[in-house]
Amino acid sequence: MELKKVLLDETEMPRQWYNILADIKMNPPLGPDGNPVTPDSLAPVFPMNLIEQEVSTERWIDIPEPVMDVLTLWRPSPLVRARALEKLLDTPARIYFKDESVSPPGSHKPNTAIPQAYYNKMFGIKHMTTETGAGQWGSALSFACSQFGIQCKVFMVRVSFDQKPYRKLMMETWGGDCIASPSNLTRAGRDALERDPDTPGSLGIAISEAIEAAVGDTTGKTRYSLGSVLNHVMLHQTIIGLEARKQMEKIGEYPDIVIGCAGGGSNFAGIAFPFVLDKMNGKDIKIYPVEPAACPTMTRAPFVYDHGDTARYTPMLPMHSLGHAFVPPPFHAGGLRYHGMAPTVSQLIVEGIVEARSVSQLSAYEAGIKTARSEGRIPAPETTHAIACVIEEALKAKEEGKEKVILFNWSGHGLLDLGAYDKFFSGKLKNYELSDEEIKQSEKVYESFPKPQVLKSR
Amino acid sequence: MELKKVLLDETEMPRQWYNILADIKMNPPLGPDGNPVTPDSLAPVFPMNLIEQEVSTERWIDIPEPVMDVLTLWRPSPLVRARALEKLLDTPARIYFKDESVSPPGSHKPNTAIPQAYYNKMFGIKHMTTETGAGQWGSALSFACSQFGIQCKVFMVRVSFDQKPYRKLMMETWGGDCIASPSNLTRAGRDALERDPDTPGSLGIAISEAIEAAVGDTTGKTRYSLGSVLNHVMLHQTIIGLEARKQMEKIGEYPDIVIGCAGGGSNFAGIAFPFVLDKMNGKDIKIYPVEPAACPTMTRAPFVYDHGDTARYTPMLPMHSLGHAFVPPPFHAGGLRYHGMAPTVSQLIVEGIVEARSVSQLSAYEAGIKTARSEGRIPAPETTHAIACVIEEALKAKEEGKEKVILFNWSGHGLLDLGAYDKFFSGKLKNYELSDEEIKQSEKVYESFPKPQVLKSR
Repeated sequence: MELKKVLLDETEMPRQWYNILADIKMNPPLGPDGNPVTPDSLAPVFPMNLIEQEVSTERWIDIPEPVMDVLTLWRPSPLVRARALEKLLDTPARIYFKDESVSPPGSHKPNTAIPQAYYNKMFGIKHMTTETGAGQWGSALSFACSQFGIQCKVFMVRVSFDQKPYRKLMMETWGGDCIASPSNLTRAGRDALERDPDTPGSLGIAISEAIEAAVGDTTGKTRYSLGSVLNHVMLHQTIIGLEARKQMEKIGEYPDIVIGCAGGGSNFAGIAFPFVLDKMNGKDIKIYPVEPAACPTMTRAPFVYDHGDTARYTPMLPMHSLGHAFVPPPFHAGGLRYHGMAPTVSQLIVEGIVEARSVSQLSAYEAGIKTARSEGRIPAPETTHAIACVIEEALKAKEEGKEKVILFNWSGHGLLDLGAYDKFFSGKLKNYELSDEEIKQSEKVYESFPKPQVLKSR
Repeated sequence: MELKKVLLDETEMPRQWYNILADIKMNPPLGPDGNPVTPDSLAPVFPMNLIEQEVSTERWIDIPEPVMDVLTLWRPSPLVRARALEKLLDTPARIYFKDESVSPPGSHKPNTAIPQAYYNKMFGIKHMTTETGAGQWGSALSFACSQFGIQCKVFMVRVSFDQKPYRKLMMETWGGDCIASPSNLTRAGRDALERDPDTPGSLGIAISEAIEAAVGDTTGKTRYSLGSVLNHVMLHQTIIGLEARKQMEKIGEYPDIVIGCAGGGSNFAGIAFPFVLDKMNGKDIKIYPVEPAACPTMTRAPFVYDHGDTARYTPMLPMHSLGHAFVPPPFHAGGLRYHGMAPTVSQLIVEGIVEARSVSQLSAYEAGIKTARSEGRIPAPETTHAIACVIEEALKAKEEGKEKVILFNWSGHGLLDLGAYDKFFSGKLKNYELSDEEIKQSEKVYESFPKPQVLKSR
């Protein structure tokens, strides 16, 4: 029998996260005055222990025991050899994936939701707020808060709120509040409703509402939480790659190629950063973050200073950005519809340590169907983007007759996204091509901002 | 750190199923003439290799290599210590569950769908038909057929078809056809539509349609498949209990109590039968199948001969039955809304080897919420019935100050059943109590049938 799964038991789990800030140089986030932001200025938004983690340059950071205790509800996650997909593709490549769909909410998101809830709890916080688009992050934070006795409030973009009732129900099952955004609970929400009572909402408005709801609590017991982009989020996700490296070692394998889809960057960073460290230490390895061609942040937008949100509440971050006002076409991979990219991932692209790729919506869904009908599992729309790139590489290996080892991150399952698969089957999905003109237009919003320096880490 | 999961690797997987027919005496299924049915009379419905398995009395039956090769896409499944639930209940009991939600369709059903598709394939079958109520079984068979290149047609009860579009989409993602029943494709369907064009459908009609679609194929390349009740289905599910026994052995544990929910009986049989064997060999162990109080087949209906379907296409089976015309109240646990019970499970109840339990709908959902907020995972409505019984036993152990070891079967996840949780939260779920009168009425349909003998296996 051909073995498929490489398992770790709980005693073999990594006890530290890998912090890439120890190994790369970064432009600092800037405040509205153009000067680097101070930790104190972020204190109304995030608890100070997480702010300290955000700016830490320690290479290895201990995972607290109470966090380990919750992570082990589902971790370590399996490393799976995709033998059925290999056979379907008739490739000499050996394809492995890290199955992050096994968590209670079904994605990698709880890897950071759990420590964020824990650090908030330690800081005495009683309520957490956040926004969610597709719903993955909102359900992960609701789950995490239920573990630490924190009340969770999620502002969910109205169009998703209406289209995906199961995500809201999942949050409620864990005791979270899920509110359609814009709402009447915040000034930002009321303003948006006044401008257009029938607005479908946007991630930009939802972020504004969540931040306002956090900083507006005069008791000081509420904080905001972000599910991607920031350094501490990337840090928490590295447990994926650290486990994967250990699992591959167990069977005497090492990847030639590492692949992850990238929206804000946390799923990619999670699998890739430990291998980035290896690469900086001399390993010969290709590392590909994959984005949708319809939201080509890494592959077509420049490295600039820009805000993380539409309403410009966040500091300016050094990153690849399509402009904070960019509204992507209505393609179906909610977690990848973001105008910016994590500053750490952006810096690695600038330095050429990782190479960004993009795939079309149709090739992503085709890859998803192929995988469901061979491996069985139905991947999330986000994951299908990584798989499309895996398939390209596996077919290239076949053409070249080379025994490549490919590792990718299975970010989540698609069970609550089957509506998009339905659209694919009925021919209602199409590819979106942005013109150079459209991209140039969208970038205008940050023309007057400071420019990041060109830094070289090694 | 307190360990939670006991894992097996693929090399440790059981290579044989346990066949309880080697150890218990059974009344034979009867044809319309009141005589035992012959294998030949079933040949138009099932392939002969599965019919042979249905009547085999070999104690151990080899799992074919190609079946192992597909089962290992997700098996062995984890055995999990529910430490968070234990803490919540403050019980001295140690609670373990076998997590069958990790399969691609999210339940234990593929454990039999895979071998059934394989044996059909070996027999030269090209098309398989089945019915589905809640959708779990239809998606499992679609998945299984996609693995063996068989075309799958699922007749789904119309009311579920309309209420649960994601189940249909899941089947289509695996290449299956999902048809609302009653349909125009069969005479049974057309008759039902003629009687009532707006009928919500029923499992009884859907079974009739699926059988008719199978036996009506004049090329002989189509067969029907059933997801529970029959002996070979129970057989295939024993891999659950065999793995669990091995996993408990690894950590020096053995259960005092084994619990599984029971609709047709396959999920219960899967975890319980290997422990039934131990009990027959002298082990002191309590074994509880759990049913909904609203469909009290095991706890309030007698052991009789009755048909497995409303339309009386199946042979008469010796089982606990509420009567083949029984329509259960509209409670929310689709997989448990069946009038009969697997003959093997029924025989064990008659002999007092296992003791049937029932729980109310509200206590089941309360148990589900408690579990989601402690263990993280959201259980299927069916699973919540097992958990309600587990909680009763854990609290009893607390009262008695005893260190009981409880093992139960986590039959599936509730991610596509969140609508029912929503009804619970909004107070729309209620308990259904059937009067003795109602039960007596429903049993009238088999009054004229032969009576099974009282057999004693040991």
